[in-house]
Amino acid sequence: MLSRNDIKLIKSLEHKKFRQENNLFVAEGPKLVGELLGKFSCPMVFATNQWMEDNKAIPARRIETVTPDELKRASLLKTPQDVIALFEIPRTETSIESAARDNLVLALDDVQDPGNLGTIIRIADWFGIKDIFCSRGTADVYNPKAVQATMGAIARVRLHYTDLAKEISGLPTGIPVYGTFLDGETIYDTELTQNGVIVMGNEGNGISAETEKAVTRRIFIPNWPAGAETSESLNVAIATAITCSEFRRRSF
Amino acid sequence: MLSRNDIKLIKSLEHKKFRQENNLFVAEGPKLVGELLGKFSCPMVFATNQWMEDNKAIPARRIETVTPDELKRASLLKTPQDVIALFEIPRTETSIESAARDNLVLALDDVQDPGNLGTIIRIADWFGIKDIFCSRGTADVYNPKAVQATMGAIARVRLHYTDLAKEISGLPTGIPVYGTFLDGETIYDTELTQNGVIVMGNEGNGISAETEKAVTRRIFIPNWPAGAETSESLNVAIATAITCSEFRRRSF
Repeated sequence: MLSRNDIKLIKSLEHKKFRQENNLFVAEGPKLVGELLGKFSCPMVFATNQWMEDNKAIPARRIETVTPDELKRASLLKTPQDVIALFEIPRTETSIESAARDNLVLALDDVQDPGNLGTIIRIADWFGIKDIFCSRGTADVYNPKAVQATMGAIARVRLHYTDLAKEISGLPTGIPVYGTFLDGETIYDTELTQNGVIVMGNEGNGISAETEKAVTRRIFIPNWPAGAETSESLNVAIATAITCSEFRRRSF
Repeated sequence: MLSRNDIKLIKSLEHKKFRQENNLFVAEGPKLVGELLGKFSCPMVFATNQWMEDNKAIPARRIETVTPDELKRASLLKTPQDVIALFEIPRTETSIESAARDNLVLALDDVQDPGNLGTIIRIADWFGIKDIFCSRGTADVYNPKAVQATMGAIARVRLHYTDLAKEISGLPTGIPVYGTFLDGETIYDTELTQNGVIVMGNEGNGISAETEKAVTRRIFIPNWPAGAETSESLNVAIATAITCSEFRRRSF
């Protein structure tokens, strides 16, 4: 059964304030919930009989069978999908320095669209990037739309919200900090390391002036043919994909 | 002035049926309209005084100054932006064969999301791909959402709707047809030409069985490190970006 308070709690988690107060986020659908169960601590699962039959030994503290009608009342999706689960927002204490010493990490400087954020997390997952550091102005990954857009990739990629410019500025010189700029070196020709930080900027404004100061390697994705008239820029998720692919290509 | 019939016409162009009947599509906002004017035949522009002052010698057959209030009533956007223009849907008669003989072209096999389509057009524009051939099941580029998502790139990239599987099947053997498949050759290692067709498939189902038969070069974007557990697949626009970048990298 799903109480009125359960529904109220689920709906409240659309808002960042209540996610932070309760330290919880929502995920829906058999595929996504299946990926997250066991990876995040799960206080509650609400699911139809059908889902219950398909899933045994569920690692959740409270498990409720509900009717499709009850599910519909609680769901944040247009088309509810058999299961709603609440998960605890994990605490993370990794520093950029320790994460970027031996692997590539992404740093998001006010990426604002939850859809872009979700897509970037899938890209990180594909290219073996385990940690993403976000400025406090970046979209909240635990926003239900962002969670759904990751399609489960948040089970394998850790997100850290931090004072990004400050953390990056404090890095020792041995850790390269890459950022894309129009005056950067063509990414295809330049030396790329398999560790360090790749900074991606805001959709409209790019990388902030403060973070830019900490960038030690300015790179650029050139359009083709060089100098032809084209769009002003690439979408941030698209630029992230091309950049990560080019970094990893070097070590195949 | 904006008549009731003008508003009715603009609103009707949200629907494919009326776009086809009138052979018209809508674009809004100074930046987008500015990019399209002169590239597409323009029967009507409705704009505020402000826009009129910033734009002289407008290549449109009918030009009306309207109040912000009138604009609001006609706009398809949440936040109307100074100008609404109607453009004629261009007729295209290019064959895949002639376009793919000397340049790369994209072929979209039922890409269904207008946002993905818009993003793919921006990517094509960035990488100097002038022609995109679409199956009839692909989202309509003249859908207002897709038009806005291209951010003007449709001014430089031609879209052709066609019986895709049939057209591709009929290509002479000298024109390579690339498609991404899980069992394909790693894109980073394989030979890539600067002409031919790159097929991208539907968001859920990939490339259709019929189109697959015509693919002569199976390629694959590997995840990193090879064999690691990761997301099931990349979003179609992301895969398009990585593929186009890798093709063009070879000829820089």
